[in-house]
Amino acid sequence: MPLASEFGRLRVVLVATRNPLNLGAAARAMSNFGFLRLRVVNPYHIAFREARSAVGAEALLRQAEEYKSVAEAVADCTLVVGTTAGARRDLNQPPRSLQESARDLRRQLQSGDVALLFGSEKRGLSNEDMSHCQWLLRIPTRVEHPSMNLGQAVAVCLYELSRLPATAPAAEAPKLATAGQVERITALLFQALQASGYVKPRTASSTEEKVRRLVRRLQIPAEDAEIWLGILRQMAWKLGQR
Amino acid sequence: MPLASEFGRLRVVLVATRNPLNLGAAARAMSNFGFLRLRVVNPYHIAFREARSAVGAEALLRQAEEYKSVAEAVADCTLVVGTTAGARRDLNQPPRSLQESARDLRRQLQSGDVALLFGSEKRGLSNEDMSHCQWLLRIPTRVEHPSMNLGQAVAVCLYELSRLPATAPAAEAPKLATAGQVERITALLFQALQASGYVKPRTASSTEEKVRRLVRRLQIPAEDAEIWLGILRQMAWKLGQR
Repeated sequence: MPLASEFGRLRVVLVATRNPLNLGAAARAMSNFGFLRLRVVNPYHIAFREARSAVGAEALLRQAEEYKSVAEAVADCTLVVGTTAGARRDLNQPPRSLQESARDLRRQLQSGDVALLFGSEKRGLSNEDMSHCQWLLRIPTRVEHPSMNLGQAVAVCLYELSRLPATAPAAEAPKLATAGQVERITALLFQALQASGYVKPRTASSTEEKVRRLVRRLQIPAEDAEIWLGILRQMAWKLGQR
Repeated sequence: MPLASEFGRLRVVLVATRNPLNLGAAARAMSNFGFLRLRVVNPYHIAFREARSAVGAEALLRQAEEYKSVAEAVADCTLVVGTTAGARRDLNQPPRSLQESARDLRRQLQSGDVALLFGSEKRGLSNEDMSHCQWLLRIPTRVEHPSMNLGQAVAVCLYELSRLPATAPAAEAPKLATAGQVERITALLFQALQASGYVKPRTASSTEEKVRRLVRRLQIPAEDAEIWLGILRQMAWKLGQR
């Protein structure tokens, strides 16, 4: 079927996965559907690279890239999408369906790298993890039993992505700033807000997440990223002077 | 989402599954997508009902129905569909894509019970298992790595089935003979062929599979099943007399 170049732009990012069997199963599904770039953030077991459940995907697993934080794992991506079972009450934005998300994700893969995040088996993605995402997607499951096994969720998402016909290259798809640039913009804005007294010490970390989401929703064009960084650097410096 | 009555007509049939973890994972995916009727044929581990991987689907697993043969497990179904990775050279019919199959399968679920078969992790469905199927379906995977994990294959198939919008009841959908009736017709026809000298002793079992496939392809209407049984019973009796 695929489209290797397009599929090669997807990074499957597994965050704080506990069970090496699930890591192996995710790797196997990736290999089945032709998505070969795996990133892991703080997996619980160091020995994950030997997961026996990675039948046929041992090389993919050995080549997985390890990161200490979600911010680093998604820094070079222009679109970051999180997955959720959607059962939690405190989501900042309602998740979009897998079907709808897959369409937009495939479109974005034509022009830039995309990260698709899966949280840990027990807790899913944390609020902090989610604050790095432009949007959340949800596999439509029964309300009585929404939470899927990690390896199965990866398989279903990649199936849906690979299932779509290749779309014509969208000439108008805007090139966006990478997640790394957006994170630097966020950090400078937060620094400026702290210096200006906007941030209360008691709620600093939740404010930081709010600010991150605010900036994510902007869709900053790639060509403007450096200009914004310059503006914010200047403001943060000035505010720090007082 | 669903459509309980329609989904309730699907039987997921796991044949000769080896690993209780996979049985549990299959049960979990069934519960996630709202298909609650599991049948197992000769599972390797008797203890499968306690599979710890069946998170949230323990009841479904306890209620699973156990059978000694595929013929018995599908006897009350009007459509029997097998799954395959399609890597084997000796398939009698090219498998159809999951997407196309799911559409027809959903249509059939409006009027009768449907069995969806998954083979063992090592070997998939045997030729004998496949001879009970009207058609085979295949999840489109990379040619370099076609073989999926069992639990993941179940999840992807059920996702595709549940993903389709409910179709309007098709008034013209013909009511078909059950697999049990078709199997009795097959047995009588084979008996008649044996008595007539058509069957060579050395190739008897492969001939039986061929005859079974031949009869499956007929799509015998439900209302004609008893008539055919009568005809064949008569012929077999007469041939046996000589």
